Amino acid sequence: MKAYKDLSRDELVTLKAGLEEEYKTAEGKGLSLNMARGKPGASQLAISMPMLDVINSESDMRTELGNDTRNYGDWDGIGECRRLMADMMEAKKDNVIICGNSSLNIMYDTVCRSMLMGVNGSTPWCKLDKVKFLCPVPGYDRHFKITELFGIEMINIPMNEDGPDMDMVEEYVNNDDSVKGIWCVPKYSNPTGISYSDKVVKRFANLKPAAGDFRIFWDNAYCVHHIYEDIQDEILNILEECEKAGNPNMVYMFGSTSKVTFSGSGVSAIATSHENIEYLKQFMTTQIIGHDKINQLRHARFFKDIDGLKTHMKKHAELIRPKFEAVLNTLDSELMGLEIGSWVKPRGGYFISFDAMPGCAKSIVAKCKALGVVLTDAGATYPYGNDPEDSNIRIAPTFPTPEEMEEATKIFVLCVKLAAIEKLLGE
Amino acid sequence: MKAYKDLSRDELVTLKAGLEEEYKTAEGKGLSLNMARGKPGASQLAISMPMLDVINSESDMRTELGNDTRNYGDWDGIGECRRLMADMMEAKKDNVIICGNSSLNIMYDTVCRSMLMGVNGSTPWCKLDKVKFLCPVPGYDRHFKITELFGIEMINIPMNEDGPDMDMVEEYVNNDDSVKGIWCVPKYSNPTGISYSDKVVKRFANLKPAAGDFRIFWDNAYCVHHIYEDIQDEILNILEECEKAGNPNMVYMFGSTSKVTFSGSGVSAIATSHENIEYLKQFMTTQIIGHDKINQLRHARFFKDIDGLKTHMKKHAELIRPKFEAVLNTLDSELMGLEIGSWVKPRGGYFISFDAMPGCAKSIVAKCKALGVVLTDAGATYPYGNDPEDSNIRIAPTFPTPEEMEEATKIFVLCVKLAAIEKLLGE
Repeated sequence: MKAYKDLSRDELVTLKAGLEEEYKTAEGKGLSLNMARGKPGASQLAISMPMLDVINSESDMRTELGNDTRNYGDWDGIGECRRLMADMMEAKKDNVIICGNSSLNIMYDTVCRSMLMGVNGSTPWCKLDKVKFLCPVPGYDRHFKITELFGIEMINIPMNEDGPDMDMVEEYVNNDDSVKGIWCVPKYSNPTGISYSDKVVKRFANLKPAAGDFRIFWDNAYCVHHIYEDIQDEILNILEECEKAGNPNMVYMFGSTSKVTFSGSGVSAIATSHENIEYLKQFMTTQIIGHDKINQLRHARFFKDIDGLKTHMKKHAELIRPKFEAVLNTLDSELMGLEIGSWVKPRGGYFISFDAMPGCAKSIVAKCKALGVVLTDAGATYPYGNDPEDSNIRIAPTFPTPEEMEEATKIFVLCVKLAAIEKLLGE
Repeated sequence: MKAYKDLSRDELVTLKAGLEEEYKTAEGKGLSLNMARGKPGASQLAISMPMLDVINSESDMRTELGNDTRNYGDWDGIGECRRLMADMMEAKKDNVIICGNSSLNIMYDTVCRSMLMGVNGSTPWCKLDKVKFLCPVPGYDRHFKITELFGIEMINIPMNEDGPDMDMVEEYVNNDDSVKGIWCVPKYSNPTGISYSDKVVKRFANLKPAAGDFRIFWDNAYCVHHIYEDIQDEILNILEECEKAGNPNMVYMFGSTSKVTFSGSGVSAIATSHENIEYLKQFMTTQIIGHDKINQLRHARFFKDIDGLKTHMKKHAELIRPKFEAVLNTLDSELMGLEIGSWVKPRGGYFISFDAMPGCAKSIVAKCKALGVVLTDAGATYPYGNDPEDSNIRIAPTFPTPEEMEEATKIFVLCVKLAAIEKLLGE
């Protein structure tokens, strides 16, 4: 296929007329498809239903250590669940605290606590004139919402194919003591799907922060969320690397089973150094007596161990792979060579990140919406909802069926083409 | 029985010798009893076990409105659970937000958010020179820990038999704009067991706070936690009274099922005005995508409605009444008339509050501990752990069996007597 930019004005006009016909036809279909949020599909939720039988009225409700999960206690989680989550996140059990159903909530609390009470004894961030976070872009909108809410200045860091631009990260972190954190989704990144290379992880671990209270917010959301059985990404263990580099307290790792079992009824965890945990403890034990231990027990007994969890994740992969392929095949067959968009084929995670011709993303999302296909808002993958290039669109393929995803993607590519031609024609 | 204060020195010495004999005998028993924390006993947890069968792998997981509880969504809770909790807390469904498993966590978050971001647009409390909370005493140690953690100055307000000293509350709230909140457990108060009279609730609702961001933290922890079937306290509805008084935004009400179903695996809620909810929403929806809706569904289907929940609470009452009676009967038979301690016979809640002779509480707790009977630390019911009279001791009768409670209380009264005599003898 010929690149659009190499087409004559007449050729573009002709092409446009044909696409507009297609658009009209699609308008008549009254579609209602949503590929906006990274929600598991119904078939995925179904595979965790047996977990709901694991604990019933006949169950022994005691932990391995004999504690009654129905009563107060165990503020940091029950042992068997800490072990499971530690294995999932590749951390040590003693470095893991199990929290509620949401790792986002732990991240919010962690930023909030740092704002109000400081980090391991540092000046509370709210007392400082300026607090900045580095935000690899495109990134996760809900991360950016947290830092925006607290008035933290966000600085865009471009994402390369092996992770964030580490020259820029080092420049900021090692020289500017108002830079207090960075948001990272290191594996199957949201939304680009890329995983950080060993070199990038090592450079992170070897940062020499100007601020003693600088922390890496390492959102290990997709640590076991592969799409394929044979091609899987592995990333270096940041906790170990930070320890080796003499920066043991520099990282908070977050994880959850929200996309392993049930979104909203999973368990979440934070993994960090012993010293950080000791500091967190005084706040966490004032905040809550303990999290839902019955649900922790349910998870621990359902999976038994990390192998059980990994077997479970293979079932998820089977279910979501056709959806990713439906999108990717359509993008390949319809857009390859046109030079009006690029995308990365992810090996895991929940998203496909699409970069349209600059200045086209909002138009594409609006056109799709008019046809009943809902995408994440253009700009959402950038701090303040502002994509300076108006280019990035996050596609979330997991919630619809593969057939629906194929249909939705056909609408999507139609809109991508139309938006590109309008742009090229200067409309 | 003759009051100790009316005994001669010789009589006291003789009495003491006998009590010391008893103490030695008790030492040999190697007891291990805990009446420190308000934890449900095993028999209470057992009555909620059938709730674990309500949701299983065959269940329809959709809410009444058709939402899938297994997926993301419904940040403020599912309708049927909001209705249940609203009925329990005597609030309107639309004024209720369901949160996680812990109302303490909502209270912590609410104070934390006010510190960092203010209240409905007010100056964040952390930016003020001084923030004060009124603390009716004796009160709940975990409330005081929250305000202590955030550096909020706590002011003791004496508790009367019908609630806090409202003259003092009005004096502070209506004149001092650094007074931003008050901790209340209005029904079956922790630890005194008293309930606020209608007059007290009305005076609360009709406060004219000097600070526009003053809030009443109304911890309705024991709203349905009666001990008797025939004698039950009712309190006026603070939300309605505040609305009538033109102070609709002045109160946050908190509640949970931690002592209805499972401690740690219940659901919690906040009830407050529409305007407050709209303000909270921007923070809560950034903090979390949604709470555990499967557990909400489990609760809603198990109880069906408020009548189901109230029937369930009768079973709790049956189980804890003998424990309360074991304590109260022993206190009556052993201490009545000695004038070395006073206590209130509660009609609900989880505690019996005991006021020893001033200067004796620490000694009593220490003596009990030495005999293997653990009580809440003396002073814990006061801000900063400091009971100026060293008098109040909180007894939590629910966790042990009635037989154990009787045995523990016998030890307790022995230690009360010994401490009093030591005090009277000037030792």
